[in-house]
Amino acid sequence: MSPAAVRQVACIGAGVIGGGWIAHFLARGYQVAAWDPAPDAEQKLRRLVDAAWPALRELGLADNASVDNLTVRPTLEAAVADAEFVQESAPEDLELKQDLLARIDAATPPGVVISSSTSGFGMTEMQARCATPHRLVVGHPFNPPYLIPLVEVVGGKQTDHSVVRWTSEFFEAAGKSVITMDREVPGFIANRLQEAIWREALHMVANGEATPAQIDASITEGPGLRWPLLGPCLTFHLAGGEGGMAHMLDHFGPSLKSPWTRLQAPELTDDLRDRMVQGCADAAEGRSVAELVAERDRAVIAVMRAIENVRQGKV
Amino acid sequence: MSPAAVRQVACIGAGVIGGGWIAHFLARGYQVAAWDPAPDAEQKLRRLVDAAWPALRELGLADNASVDNLTVRPTLEAAVADAEFVQESAPEDLELKQDLLARIDAATPPGVVISSSTSGFGMTEMQARCATPHRLVVGHPFNPPYLIPLVEVVGGKQTDHSVVRWTSEFFEAAGKSVITMDREVPGFIANRLQEAIWREALHMVANGEATPAQIDASITEGPGLRWPLLGPCLTFHLAGGEGGMAHMLDHFGPSLKSPWTRLQAPELTDDLRDRMVQGCADAAEGRSVAELVAERDRAVIAVMRAIENVRQGKV
Repeated sequence: MSPAAVRQVACIGAGVIGGGWIAHFLARGYQVAAWDPAPDAEQKLRRLVDAAWPALRELGLADNASVDNLTVRPTLEAAVADAEFVQESAPEDLELKQDLLARIDAATPPGVVISSSTSGFGMTEMQARCATPHRLVVGHPFNPPYLIPLVEVVGGKQTDHSVVRWTSEFFEAAGKSVITMDREVPGFIANRLQEAIWREALHMVANGEATPAQIDASITEGPGLRWPLLGPCLTFHLAGGEGGMAHMLDHFGPSLKSPWTRLQAPELTDDLRDRMVQGCADAAEGRSVAELVAERDRAVIAVMRAIENVRQGKV
Repeated sequence: MSPAAVRQVACIGAGVIGGGWIAHFLARGYQVAAWDPAPDAEQKLRRLVDAAWPALRELGLADNASVDNLTVRPTLEAAVADAEFVQESAPEDLELKQDLLARIDAATPPGVVISSSTSGFGMTEMQARCATPHRLVVGHPFNPPYLIPLVEVVGGKQTDHSVVRWTSEFFEAAGKSVITMDREVPGFIANRLQEAIWREALHMVANGEATPAQIDASITEGPGLRWPLLGPCLTFHLAGGEGGMAHMLDHFGPSLKSPWTRLQAPELTDDLRDRMVQGCADAAEGRSVAELVAERDRAVIAVMRAIENVRQGKV
């Protein structure tokens, strides 16, 4: 089946990530069959989809998009029976994923690609118990999957190259921005970069050098304003002036050795934990997580629109 | 003098950063006296200010703002003679900064604050040769200083606390977003976070795990879309769901130990250098640095507007 011809998607796991995928697929006009073992999963899922729908309508729905295209099935097997693509979004537990993917593999029609949302495991270790491991691939989204375009696609040792290619084309057809990786790297790409920032932030808090609010302000009022348009490489390319990255590296290369970042994960002491928790409460200024999520969604849309207008030369 | 009463600013050094400060101060309605030892400095400076002006007009000029309020002086001493505030933006060379700041200190009227744009040195080491070191402070901007709001303010061991406070208030009055730090940390805050990402990116390129274009796309299509609104701490606060940062740390704390980021600056080999340079050329897709700068400026404005509308509940 050609990637663009897919109409029936199965989503296994319907928490924040699985539910986000489901909202995305519904908005792009797919039929979605979902399964999640939690007793209140359907209720939570429908609430998540309803909450996301205004943002998705704002972004533009596919012609045939409807929340009515979602069916929640009583078993995993029923959910994948008619699938033309399967997205697994179970909790990050290797044993659980290995068993679940083997079950999905056994129940899914031959030739249908099975993708995992894992952020932490390589497909090589996850596909170990599958009968037909060649069709299993990682399709790692970003939260919320219905808004953030990025998906990182990478296979395991037993994954067919053609499956990796097909999956990338499918996600592109489904409206995502795809990075196809040609080898497994723990954390893939974006999370490694995020983790590097996150660990440095934890060190600064642990050492009393900055509060979470200062750290966040240093990003939102500073380099964070550039990152929706220019990633870290092109940012430093511009920092090199007319000479670009070459001047940057030749001129500032030695400052790589500057003691400007710490290099091991800090001990997560109770004190560090409490300072992070309290600091985030301060930074949230009374806004609940739900309020922050709604604000983030509006902001991501507004920022994507702004960047798109700039790229098209409209502003 | 109260911080809000300042009208006359002297800028010593008029390259990319000094020139950016000058454009910012002119746009906020200040009289600016500049000095730079380079023979073609005035010509370059006026070109930089002219190039920045459309963006500044777009953002909103102060009533009395004019490029005609810039005068370029033949000597450092002439530039600071009438100053009510001095911003130094010389190259990052400790010897040079120590001497230059001592000269500025000797020539500047008593009681006037002298701020350094340094991104790399602490004021404690820079103020060593000054006769009145208590009035020297770091005011570290982000590029371009006429667009990115962030300024990090921090004193050295000999800096008066009142000078730090005054400087923060002055920058606020001049339209910047200020983080006041209560101790010196190499790289301050935002650059440490940027450096952490940058080193991880270099490691990935050095290891052939990702190209600069993939690294940039992983940010611009992914977490970079959230960072203009939510810094790294609140981002992970949301990742904890309703339980926020507490749930995040208590639940995912152990994954801090995951091998998701490398922890020493990589050796800047010729090969790594060339791969970064070529990768940036690829990612620029034929756009010159000047074109990328113009695009970035439009994008930063559009993103700041978008975020502001979201914060005010307009979208």
